[in-house]
Amino acid sequence: MTTRRPFVMEEGVAILARTPATLDALLRGLPDGWIAANEGNNTWSPFDVIGHLIHGERTDWMPRVKIILEHGEERAFDTFDRFAQFAASEGRTLASLLDEFATLRRDNLRELARLRLTSADLDRRGQHPAFGAVTLRQLLATWVAHDLDHVVQISRVLARQYSSEVGPWTAYLRIISGQQG
Amino acid sequence: MTTRRPFVMEEGVAILARTPATLDALLRGLPDGWIAANEGNNTWSPFDVIGHLIHGERTDWMPRVKIILEHGEERAFDTFDRFAQFAASEGRTLASLLDEFATLRRDNLRELARLRLTSADLDRRGQHPAFGAVTLRQLLATWVAHDLDHVVQISRVLARQYSSEVGPWTAYLRIISGQQG
Repeated sequence: MTTRRPFVMEEGVAILARTPATLDALLRGLPDGWIAANEGNNTWSPFDVIGHLIHGERTDWMPRVKIILEHGEERAFDTFDRFAQFAASEGRTLASLLDEFATLRRDNLRELARLRLTSADLDRRGQHPAFGAVTLRQLLATWVAHDLDHVVQISRVLARQYSSEVGPWTAYLRIISGQQG
Repeated sequence: MTTRRPFVMEEGVAILARTPATLDALLRGLPDGWIAANEGNNTWSPFDVIGHLIHGERTDWMPRVKIILEHGEERAFDTFDRFAQFAASEGRTLASLLDEFATLRRDNLRELARLRLTSADLDRRGQHPAFGAVTLRQLLATWVAHDLDHVVQISRVLARQYSSEVGPWTAYLRIISGQQG
């Protein structure tokens, strides 16, 4: 069994606050081929993912927090557009996207802190357009896990560029062999 | 089909040089519960993984490069101890492990640069104790992919701590639902 942690605001925020610097350290200045790499078909490149994270900062996480606090279950969240980044990021540089993500995240975490949410607030419910009732705690835990999911995705996309180049070592590299381990 | 990149020294080194700062940004100063979290049974925590990366810097990657250059296929690589970090990291702080990893990596990349490996060098072969003949190119590509595999692992371990806390969103989080996507 995986160890589990209950959602605790300071601990969740500790991850959220680190994601921009983590992705900056991983991606800024990398050769363009890495930044544009993907897993085929309509899968996303690291460049696409940063645009997606920016769109989440603008339209998803904090806006939904506010909908819950202001409207509870009476107003469903707006649907999140998972493809908005393709138009929004066009012509941008990765460096400017990383800068924007860092700024938006910092502002959003400041706003979250200003709300001084209590444990009772975290139990408040909102209306997800697909899932129905969700809690504010679930929304915030998802914000954290969603960040990490995309750190995984970016690292996986990069690693798989060397799927052929690693030769027999593919057997030991779970990220290339496809086993999650 | 995943886009693929051939191994190019500067591109591979660009990733290798970023890994210590990436993991530093993600992990340094995180609450202890995150650092010690794992996926159950004998799976590794972020703390364990950093120790493993340190052991690789000391005994695996550059030592194997040198064995190939000096002995070719005549001398098999030493077996890599995947569990050495449990004793070696005991009593250490995460901060000191991150510092050590960064120092070792920087030194190893300096040494790699000093070798001024040519494309012909990258075709030279060594003897892996399990796989048999491998090339220096495959070894270096594996070093890169191995870094990224462990960035994936650490991010996955962290995300899965919130497996219950995300509620119905688990359906959208591939890292928790177990689908690699």
